Amino acid sequence: MKKRNIVFIARSLDGYISGKNGELDWLESIPNPDNIDMGFGRLMEEIDAVVMGRTTFETVVGFGGQWPYSKHVFVLSHSLNEIPSNLKSKVSLLAGSVETILESIHEKGYYVLYIDGGSTIQSFLKEDLIDELRITTIPILLGGGFPLFGKLQKPQTFEHISSNLYLNQIVQNCYIRKR
Amino acid sequence: MKKRNIVFIARSLDGYISGKNGELDWLESIPNPDNIDMGFGRLMEEIDAVVMGRTTFETVVGFGGQWPYSKHVFVLSHSLNEIPSNLKSKVSLLAGSVETILESIHEKGYYVLYIDGGSTIQSFLKEDLIDELRITTIPILLGGGFPLFGKLQKPQTFEHISSNLYLNQIVQNCYIRKR
Repeated sequence: MKKRNIVFIARSLDGYISGKNGELDWLESIPNPDNIDMGFGRLMEEIDAVVMGRTTFETVVGFGGQWPYSKHVFVLSHSLNEIPSNLKSKVSLLAGSVETILESIHEKGYYVLYIDGGSTIQSFLKEDLIDELRITTIPILLGGGFPLFGKLQKPQTFEHISSNLYLNQIVQNCYIRKR
Repeated sequence: MKKRNIVFIARSLDGYISGKNGELDWLESIPNPDNIDMGFGRLMEEIDAVVMGRTTFETVVGFGGQWPYSKHVFVLSHSLNEIPSNLKSKVSLLAGSVETILESIHEKGYYVLYIDGGSTIQSFLKEDLIDELRITTIPILLGGGFPLFGKLQKPQTFEHISSNLYLNQIVQNCYIRKR
């Protein structure tokens, strides 16, 4: 089984995934009348499971509405004790280092993973565990907020795979790690 | 005369314009056997003058070789007193606030300006004086260095104008400020 960790995320032109006060409204600043999913549905088909941090999980739960993930979701948290009862069959909690978490997910038979949430993505990148970056860029400078990328010990080179322009404004680039 | 301030710069995937120790070698990590200029020549034709900070000026002088700018260059510096004698007809020194500098350049008859260098770009963006961003993204995570974008008081929205893929690896996006 080929193990693969994929990041699929939107950022501002200056690299933030949320604004100075956690704002996410700018993500929908470009009108999307036909509700195109910019590759999210295809991603869901490709992956075996989703891995995200507590903040992202709570944000998604807070959106209300339909649960957006068709694959099992692993939430990484040391503080969360329980999953809301309506999500218990769809979501599991995990804690530990990135390596032990990954090992445990692989042992359960999930190999192609969608890694989501700022802190989780940064932890995986720090260990050079991201194989694919699918980055959607919204044409706005936020001027501050939570950055997609953090510090790294060493540079990591990627190979550009594809570019797409959505809604005539939103650029999505896919890159795979060159090892 | 239509005044316009254009940024044309390369950054890493994680938004740096130079590495942790000022490295610039990654800018040439993608083989460019035919030495394509990725829009630099066209930019030179469009602009009336170049505006850059001292660090960028000293970096370009340090490269040696042919002087790359066919238009007049204004170097913003409070510390530099003299321009090397071979460049005296091509380069002028200016000091002061971004507004007074711009006013002085416009009075000299230069209206379409190429704004270059990290600190200079950030100063112009802080005053919301950038009209066009032409950003070339090299597929590497540097993990640290001098960031292209700094903090801003307020978000700035842009409109996506064009995307180009160079050397099958380097994405260049052009955006204009939506006012």
